[in-house]
Amino acid sequence: MTTPFSFKIDATDGKARTGAVTTARGKIRTPAFMPVGTAGTVKAMFTEHVRSSGADILLGNTYHLMLRPGAERVARLGGLHKFMNWDGPILTDSGGFQVMSLSKLRKMSEQGVTFQSHIDGSKHEMSPERSIEIQCLLGSDIQMQLDECVAFPATFEEAEDAMELSLRWAERSKAAFKKFGNDEQALFGIVQGGVYPELRDRSAALLSEMDFPGYSIGGLAVGEGHESMLETLDITTPKLPANKPCYLMGVGTPLDLVESVARGVDMFDCVMPTRAGRHGTAYTWDGKLNIKNAKHAEDANPLDPESTCPASRDYSRAYLHHLIKANEYLGAMLLTWANVHFYQDLMAAMRAAISEGRFEAFRKDAQRRFG
Amino acid sequence: MTTPFSFKIDATDGKARTGAVTTARGKIRTPAFMPVGTAGTVKAMFTEHVRSSGADILLGNTYHLMLRPGAERVARLGGLHKFMNWDGPILTDSGGFQVMSLSKLRKMSEQGVTFQSHIDGSKHEMSPERSIEIQCLLGSDIQMQLDECVAFPATFEEAEDAMELSLRWAERSKAAFKKFGNDEQALFGIVQGGVYPELRDRSAALLSEMDFPGYSIGGLAVGEGHESMLETLDITTPKLPANKPCYLMGVGTPLDLVESVARGVDMFDCVMPTRAGRHGTAYTWDGKLNIKNAKHAEDANPLDPESTCPASRDYSRAYLHHLIKANEYLGAMLLTWANVHFYQDLMAAMRAAISEGRFEAFRKDAQRRFG
Repeated sequence: MTTPFSFKIDATDGKARTGAVTTARGKIRTPAFMPVGTAGTVKAMFTEHVRSSGADILLGNTYHLMLRPGAERVARLGGLHKFMNWDGPILTDSGGFQVMSLSKLRKMSEQGVTFQSHIDGSKHEMSPERSIEIQCLLGSDIQMQLDECVAFPATFEEAEDAMELSLRWAERSKAAFKKFGNDEQALFGIVQGGVYPELRDRSAALLSEMDFPGYSIGGLAVGEGHESMLETLDITTPKLPANKPCYLMGVGTPLDLVESVARGVDMFDCVMPTRAGRHGTAYTWDGKLNIKNAKHAEDANPLDPESTCPASRDYSRAYLHHLIKANEYLGAMLLTWANVHFYQDLMAAMRAAISEGRFEAFRKDAQRRFG
Repeated sequence: MTTPFSFKIDATDGKARTGAVTTARGKIRTPAFMPVGTAGTVKAMFTEHVRSSGADILLGNTYHLMLRPGAERVARLGGLHKFMNWDGPILTDSGGFQVMSLSKLRKMSEQGVTFQSHIDGSKHEMSPERSIEIQCLLGSDIQMQLDECVAFPATFEEAEDAMELSLRWAERSKAAFKKFGNDEQALFGIVQGGVYPELRDRSAALLSEMDFPGYSIGGLAVGEGHESMLETLDITTPKLPANKPCYLMGVGTPLDLVESVARGVDMFDCVMPTRAGRHGTAYTWDGKLNIKNAKHAEDANPLDPESTCPASRDYSRAYLHHLIKANEYLGAMLLTWANVHFYQDLMAAMRAAISEGRFEAFRKDAQRRFG
């Protein structure tokens, strides 16, 4: 018997909602933050700690995995879950965004993209069909259609062309998913349209008609700024089916997350907690801190004595300062763990606040803490 | 009430012996292998995993710690144990070896060494007294006298001069330890003399008269080769007090450890398992393997399905291959963990073999596996 993909909202508070996405590999409590496991690993973390931090799902990058170790190889080894020793759900992106940002010698056409690997210069093709095939080879539980995400700033015409192409690719992705996917997996459509309300409107409306099990909002957090992102969310989320999960791709800071949840977003991913951790930035309830700052050199306090995360609780800021200054692996390991755990604590706090009907107060407090 | 440093031999088998060194911070089962925590961290490992791998004690490097974060700073933060979140015993070296191998613009004299930091060029002094003072500031449980370790090959005269200087520094280190140390800590004397039996003899004899609670054998594994090292051990260990622990510094490969235990050595440290792990070499009961080798790219087998170490048991060689090729933190984390755990399993197996009077058979098997 298969467990079909489903979404249930348990409580709402304003436009914010909390509930769970159910997949064959387990429940994803929403609002959910997905740590990014780029190349089959959440950088500098054991999956055991990803799990114990409270993460129900993680994200894999199709572009990275198709180039190394290769989707067919991962499939021969039993799929991405087994490969990386993570038995919870995995969401994969389509690869399109990173083809655009990382690869060399790209050629775009209606059919798809040809490009060269940034690792070894090898030539590859990416089409809606190949993207879905790869995501199915990886064994992804939640898959993304191939889309075109234009750089910011883009003219109306550029944003429109990319949005229209993304709609056509949504249809082709859906057809490919029928061929390669199964009942336990889900394919999300992606809303594009830059910062143009008219385009976001049309994209959301036409994707809604296609009846995807979930919807992603793409093309944000690419330089348009916090306010402009929130304005786009304001006009986009109400146009999407209220009974489907809404995933804001590549976002964001703690305040971005709170403000997006206030606008009805259910799922997020971002490299921020992991990347910042490797570079010495810690996220805490008192805001962001740069552990390399000299003021931490003799600070015997941990990042957060109240945290249930050993990395935040059991090591002094002075020690973290030392490790990052000395470029020790353990510095990246501890700060990444602390940040991923903090992000999960933030999501758990939002879920509790929504359940208990006090999300507005939580949001005000978050604005004060993180603003 | 203080727990004085002590050593008890529970069983012998030929010249091999098993027992325990007792310190205020806990028992060290011997023969013991000490993972190296150079700059206040066993590189790429959580202390929790160092402990669960079976390590009773770890080593800290005085040279690295005095330069960054600084011994006085560590002392103000409560000592090295608290700083790095390790409550077991810590052994520190004197710093002398790394002053010689890493620092710049060294000047040696009878008094000590002046040198510049390899990190920032700052000027420092190292004398027998300052070395002990630093080790006490760090809170080291087992400390080393400052010695002079000559490079290999050295002439008889060079080796003799260094050995004689080391003996004079042993006296000064002992006097300094009386001033800075306490009853719960121990200071070891270090046998020098290169590969010259006559010098090793004299060094061992004179140090024995000084009645240290333990003895280190320095100046080996510096290029003289496995056979020459064993010959030197053959003539050195019998000259040291049989009721004191004997520590062979900076050694070695699995076979080095087995052959040295066969010659009466009780304690070891080496960067090999940690450094090799970071570079993609795994130690197993079937010998050493280079995980970067293409033959591992699709090998679904773990390093060792029988291991109690998750890193050896729960991840395929294909995954480890991928991680190391992709230069992912997790590759270094898993292979370091696996190697440190393997080294501890090897020590545990030797202790059991000695206890059960079958060490010669164990050694024969080890020669076949690792030779």
